Amino acid sequence: MPNMTRSPGAELTRMREAAPLVQNITNYVAMNWMANVQLAVGAAPAMIHAPEEAGEFARIAGALTVNIGTLSRSWVEGMRAAADGANAAGRPWVFDPVAVGATSYRRAVARHLMELRPAAVRGNASEIMVLAGQGAGGRGVDSGDPVAAAESAARALALRAGCVVAVTGAEDYATDGERALRVAGGHALMPRITAMGCALTGVVGAFVAGAEDRLAATGAALACFAAAGTRAGRAAEGPGSFQVAFLDALAALDEAVLDEGARVTWE
Amino acid sequence: MPNMTRSPGAELTRMREAAPLVQNITNYVAMNWMANVQLAVGAAPAMIHAPEEAGEFARIAGALTVNIGTLSRSWVEGMRAAADGANAAGRPWVFDPVAVGATSYRRAVARHLMELRPAAVRGNASEIMVLAGQGAGGRGVDSGDPVAAAESAARALALRAGCVVAVTGAEDYATDGERALRVAGGHALMPRITAMGCALTGVVGAFVAGAEDRLAATGAALACFAAAGTRAGRAAEGPGSFQVAFLDALAALDEAVLDEGARVTWE
Amino acid sequence: MPNMTRSPGAELTRMREAAPLVQNITNYVAMNWMANVQLAVGAAPAMIHAPEEAGEFARIAGALTVNIGTLSRSWVEGMRAAADGANAAGRPWVFDPVAVGATSYRRAVARHLMELRPAAVRGNASEIMVLAGQGAGGRGVDSGDPVAAAESAARALALRAGCVVAVTGAEDYATDGERALRVAGGHALMPRITAMGCALTGVVGAFVAGAEDRLAATGAALACFAAAGTRAGRAAEGPGSFQVAFLDALAALDEAVLDEGARVTWE
Repeated sequence: MPNMTRSPGAELTRMREAAPLVQNITNYVAMNWMANVQLAVGAAPAMIHAPEEAGEFARIAGALTVNIGTLSRSWVEGMRAAADGANAAGRPWVFDPVAVGATSYRRAVARHLMELRPAAVRGNASEIMVLAGQGAGGRGVDSGDPVAAAESAARALALRAGCVVAVTGAEDYATDGERALRVAGGHALMPRITAMGCALTGVVGAFVAGAEDRLAATGAALACFAAAGTRAGRAAEGPGSFQVAFLDALAALDEAVLDEGARVTWE
Repeated sequence: MPNMTRSPGAELTRMREAAPLVQNITNYVAMNWMANVQLAVGAAPAMIHAPEEAGEFARIAGALTVNIGTLSRSWVEGMRAAADGANAAGRPWVFDPVAVGATSYRRAVARHLMELRPAAVRGNASEIMVLAGQGAGGRGVDSGDPVAAAESAARALALRAGCVVAVTGAEDYATDGERALRVAGGHALMPRITAMGCALTGVVGAFVAGAEDRLAATGAALACFAAAGTRAGRAAEGPGSFQVAFLDALAALDEAVLDEGARVTWE
Repeated sequence: MPNMTRSPGAELTRMREAAPLVQNITNYVAMNWMANVQLAVGAAPAMIHAPEEAGEFARIAGALTVNIGTLSRSWVEGMRAAADGANAAGRPWVFDPVAVGATSYRRAVARHLMELRPAAVRGNASEIMVLAGQGAGGRGVDSGDPVAAAESAARALALRAGCVVAVTGAEDYATDGERALRVAGGHALMPRITAMGCALTGVVGAFVAGAEDRLAATGAALACFAAAGTRAGRAAEGPGSFQVAFLDALAALDEAVLDEGARVTWE
């Protein structure tokens, strides 16, 4: 059973009061959308990736997120420098293994980054299964597997890597290897908008910054997306108007909207 | 005269049922918009450009698009690796020669990429004329020439390169060197939104994936843009609301909307 | 006192008639938004950054803007090549020192770029203070200081570098070291949208292209943002709908809307 300190609404209030500076090394597709999503939810994004400065910046940020959607050799150097900087400063970092099953280069980079001890990993079912050493991966950036198929992989990965693992899809699942929670809500248009998962990783980053309970923080981030998605879906006539309504809904989130639009179940 | 297998509506249905995975190596300005446009129309975009993985990924994608809007040396390596991979796997790739006339570097890169046998080329009139060896090129990324001025250049280029060539503007023209079609429709706000041409190239990529008739497929892609543009123009109060309405209209496309908003004429 | 040639409306008409080609080397977050903002206001953006072509392109553009939001070594080479090209062709270039106080790499790059004689600099208060050698810089990309705190730094920097310096925030301040102006207007949602400052730098670039009075041109750019922001704020329900309404408002700007939504005061 969740106690009050674990409620998504309480986590949202905590995060907004801190308004954490979140450093993101993410893909080109996601950059603008992710920054706007983080701003809408109440965090302060900064996209800083150059190896010359990524580690220095990670020491002043509240959290770091790393996403391998559009890889390049020099960016991987920056990711490593940033993760090292975050670790040295005791700041959590969140890993998003986009399309990790698609190419051997991607698998190698992901394996390497996992050794740098992320505080949380967020991916779709196929990505989490590949990362856990199960399954062959989805087609491109989409998941070929339902969330349920990745639950045991998520628990195994969480225990092995000592981090929170979130599998997102129609109904989300997050675990620290011992505890677990599910988040229902959202809207069918969400997979029709690019970089929604990437942006969600950014919101997880905002919530784990300074969090006492990283699983509860991750659950609150998932709940924000689910609740805002539910609300945006009501106003939207298609993927264009959904994006607009989604940013508006994220900014308008409060405890009541969260409770109305997202169902979080601990187990 | 078009037969039924060539109708834009039938092509749209075929493309949506396949929901092709389309790999795009495109410019930074276009990335997010292009991915959202491809998702709205019914395809599955993936932006993968690193030389280390671009060729491997091209073998699992249904089609590849390459756009030189924002060039860099390492990206050109990735473009070559991807085009080679697509060719080796027998997958079509579509070339977008953005602003090819603007600098000597751009002309050299475009010349090199044309040798890698694209299945289709989409550009504005100035770009197609430069690529065909005629004309000095437009100002920056905009066309300095009307579509009609590029028709003979398009036919010559199509014959020489053995590909479909689409010249887009107020009224579009596409040819495989022997047959040709024109597409009318769209809206005056379309040139006021960045990366519309780039995104259209992505839609051409989605349609030529697995197509039996690449000219008919290209015509259907152009028709989707024209029809969605016509519809979006009715709802829009400016370029901001046009973008929103355009994505909604692309997702809402069906055969009736296509027939209403776009006029395709074969010749 | 402003004379008629200095009125924002007259500057807007001049800029729109010229429809200047503006080359932008900007960060990945801003690219799409900035291009759409420049198109909405009436300019023609082109994002060209490769060292192989940035200098050549700068000679055909009406103005250049350089933004260090997402740095990389090869991009800095492109920035230098472009600024050299602009200087050689007698075209103005505008510098945006994003988060210059955040890392030592950023400070070094900014110092170097200032030596290439920008025609204008636009930043928030913290950035301008760091660039002028005062203050330690804001947190990440946000300003930790109010505009008023940076006024003397702006004047000193303008005199030392021989350029216009614009400090933007709740009320903007711009100076050439001798004259100064203030622009009030805008809306509280503007800092909740990413890359608004970056896009404003792009609009400054459009206005200083071919301008006789670069301070008046800069003031007109700030006035456009303030007026469009005021108008968009009336229609917006959050940051998503604000973005849409802002682009629509920029495109709908005319002298009357400018006068209604922005207050420009010379001193």
